[in-house]
Amino acid sequence: MTDNATSSPLEKALARADANLDGSLERFFDLLRIKSISTDPAYKDDCEAAARWLAGQLAELGFDASVRPTGGQPMVLAHEKSAAGTHVLFYGHYDVQPVDPLGEWNSDPFEPKLAPAENGDTHIVARGASDDKGQLLTFVEACRAWREANGALPLPVSILLEGEEEAGSRNLGPFLDATQDELKADVVLVCDTDMWDDQTPAITLMMRGLCGVEIEIEAASRDLHSGVYGGAARNPLQVMATILAGLRDTDGRILLEGFYEGVEELPSQIKELWERLPFDEEAFLNKVGLSVPAGETGRSVLEQIWARPTFEINGITGGYGGEGFKTVIPARASAKVSFRLVGQQDPVRICETFRAYVEARLPADCALRFTVHSSSRATTVSTQNPYLAPTLEALTQEWETEAALSGGGGSIPVINEFKNRLGMDALLVGFARFDNRVHSPNEKYDLSSYRKGIRSWIRILAALS
Amino acid sequence: MTDNATSSPLEKALARADANLDGSLERFFDLLRIKSISTDPAYKDDCEAAARWLAGQLAELGFDASVRPTGGQPMVLAHEKSAAGTHVLFYGHYDVQPVDPLGEWNSDPFEPKLAPAENGDTHIVARGASDDKGQLLTFVEACRAWREANGALPLPVSILLEGEEEAGSRNLGPFLDATQDELKADVVLVCDTDMWDDQTPAITLMMRGLCGVEIEIEAASRDLHSGVYGGAARNPLQVMATILAGLRDTDGRILLEGFYEGVEELPSQIKELWERLPFDEEAFLNKVGLSVPAGETGRSVLEQIWARPTFEINGITGGYGGEGFKTVIPARASAKVSFRLVGQQDPVRICETFRAYVEARLPADCALRFTVHSSSRATTVSTQNPYLAPTLEALTQEWETEAALSGGGGSIPVINEFKNRLGMDALLVGFARFDNRVHSPNEKYDLSSYRKGIRSWIRILAALS
Repeated sequence: MTDNATSSPLEKALARADANLDGSLERFFDLLRIKSISTDPAYKDDCEAAARWLAGQLAELGFDASVRPTGGQPMVLAHEKSAAGTHVLFYGHYDVQPVDPLGEWNSDPFEPKLAPAENGDTHIVARGASDDKGQLLTFVEACRAWREANGALPLPVSILLEGEEEAGSRNLGPFLDATQDELKADVVLVCDTDMWDDQTPAITLMMRGLCGVEIEIEAASRDLHSGVYGGAARNPLQVMATILAGLRDTDGRILLEGFYEGVEELPSQIKELWERLPFDEEAFLNKVGLSVPAGETGRSVLEQIWARPTFEINGITGGYGGEGFKTVIPARASAKVSFRLVGQQDPVRICETFRAYVEARLPADCALRFTVHSSSRATTVSTQNPYLAPTLEALTQEWETEAALSGGGGSIPVINEFKNRLGMDALLVGFARFDNRVHSPNEKYDLSSYRKGIRSWIRILAALS
Repeated sequence: MTDNATSSPLEKALARADANLDGSLERFFDLLRIKSISTDPAYKDDCEAAARWLAGQLAELGFDASVRPTGGQPMVLAHEKSAAGTHVLFYGHYDVQPVDPLGEWNSDPFEPKLAPAENGDTHIVARGASDDKGQLLTFVEACRAWREANGALPLPVSILLEGEEEAGSRNLGPFLDATQDELKADVVLVCDTDMWDDQTPAITLMMRGLCGVEIEIEAASRDLHSGVYGGAARNPLQVMATILAGLRDTDGRILLEGFYEGVEELPSQIKELWERLPFDEEAFLNKVGLSVPAGETGRSVLEQIWARPTFEINGITGGYGGEGFKTVIPARASAKVSFRLVGQQDPVRICETFRAYVEARLPADCALRFTVHSSSRATTVSTQNPYLAPTLEALTQEWETEAALSGGGGSIPVINEFKNRLGMDALLVGFARFDNRVHSPNEKYDLSSYRKGIRSWIRILAALS
């Protein structure tokens, strides 16, 4: 790095970030190698290792950093408040989704690989590359560059890294309550969302909520031979298929009583904004081998994925799934299903209505086990947030194109937790791409997302300081 | 064994069978230890080992025995024709069903265990104990006892043991065609069916046919994040549930066009016979944790399981089935389903109709893979068969109670193959019990089935000679 006495702190930090890139990538790979799958108890030690690794990195950067135990995976909490000014709290999560089906990965999901991309970019391929290890490191590496270039950060920074975002964030609420004095800041920054497109950065204004439920239906006390019992014995897979098939009509509407209470039509202002956005429905679907929107009739794809609620079957298990054939009537069947929620839909009420719906359709001899895995409301970020304009401007400068205000189909329940428990608003700034294969085999993050993500945060820190 | 000069050959053979029992059990255990799962290619060597073991046993008993290769698992074919008279061809199968869910077995499925039964009997617990290793050995051990007691068998005996009965018997037809001169006999004897109840033996007069089909539906080119794509992307599990749920109405009737063509009402003669049989519907269902018949409204349980066709879902696989939760829209879903057929229902036409039914309901962007695993017509044994009466009488003598003429819900496609390709009728004589957990964890065979099964065949050999 050449230190130019006439450079501004911002320019120095940007130059330092670029000079750091190889080292940043090595650190990124170290974190990707840790198998921090939060939803599977087999990976508990790995989650703790990821937390310790991150706390170590932050301590190196002058943060007062610690690993905080919870009832589940630990939190990482760190503060660097040597400067005065706007206090920002950055949130990310170090846990990742399970990797199956493992057979569809082209390389070991926990041995990151660089792969050349068609557009000249480079892909960093590994589980968590995008969601959320790569994204959270853009902020950490921005802090590193700023500190190494200028000695100290330009404003007070706190960092909270969760280890259970992919597992329902069960311990987050109690943790926020218990540490609210420590966490209270002027604004929350979150890096867990997508860019508008490869060239256009975005701040996400709305995120859907989520009800995630597992239902298990048990009939006979053991698996039965379909020759001996077939015709007289209840088949729980048949019961499951019938119950799940009945939840959605041919127009894609969800047939649960009261489901659409709290769902409002998109404000015309947002609708017009989205219509102007350069979004190609066909290309969006084509990219994953599809061509026809499968959601509610008469809605645009952006509405379907950002502004409308859904019902999805995320998994069904039951009976024989091995090679060949087995004429079994299984004793039990289970399904993991989820609803994405928008507006004021109440996840608790929807879970209850769904449970009642299932119970009402259970025939004789069927027992139900109903487990709620996650439950969160939709989020809307106010356009009145005073930090929105400078952040948007910083992004626009880095990417040299006007940043977008977009919607998002996924759920980041923590946003509501910050608002409801600590009264803090959040800005969702992310550098992931639509084609990152988040939650899928061969997840990737673009090297340009990583490099320009780091540079974007440096500009945002400068803009907010 | 005390050799009594005044005993008949039959009495000598029966005494010899009882004296042999411990040795017979050891041989049974040796066969049970061989993991001959035909449907899974991983067990190919085990299937061959089972075939070689059986051919070795039969050679020991003076049979001209050999292992005959096929396109799949080998056949065992053996002849002992030193006597004149009625030539019988015995058929059994040495292959077994897969063992999953393995966690529900109380002991290793391939390490047979003796367990005391509540009724004072003893259970032999292992995969294949009943279906069909125990059953086929009753005949082999009957031949052993007769030969050891009397020097030679009382009539010409051929034995055909298949290794793919649980995998669709794909190579059986060609094998029968190729060896018809060798196989042609006066009557086929099959031991793969149930007793009427613990005390009452039975000859099974009708067996249902089977269409076994696997359908795979593929939508997107990869698994998708339900937050990013949910609402716009087609979910193949939802398509699968909808297609399968639509096949059966609330009265249990199957909604496939033309499905009931060839299904006739039960002849009143058989209906009356079955009504007289000591069958307790409630006890039959209670035994496996059920209480209400789930089949067609207005039919008795015996009709539902023996005389009516069915549709069953034998397995569904798709999406995330591990611990916790994963908000995925899977790229594909698959299901194994089967129809049990009766009367003159045509399995080939039903497979075609089913395929058309599925294709007609596939929405845009869904590709179908449709695999027929098995296809067999129902079987009816003629009551005019001249070997029926002496066989019934031999069973009645051994069990000291009148043997029953029953129906059976399972499928033994080989019966039709013998009839259609070789013009031979078969008698289905079996010693399995309803509660043998065939195809399920903890499969068992009763020691009394094994002992009295051997003795029954000795009496049948005498009666037919």
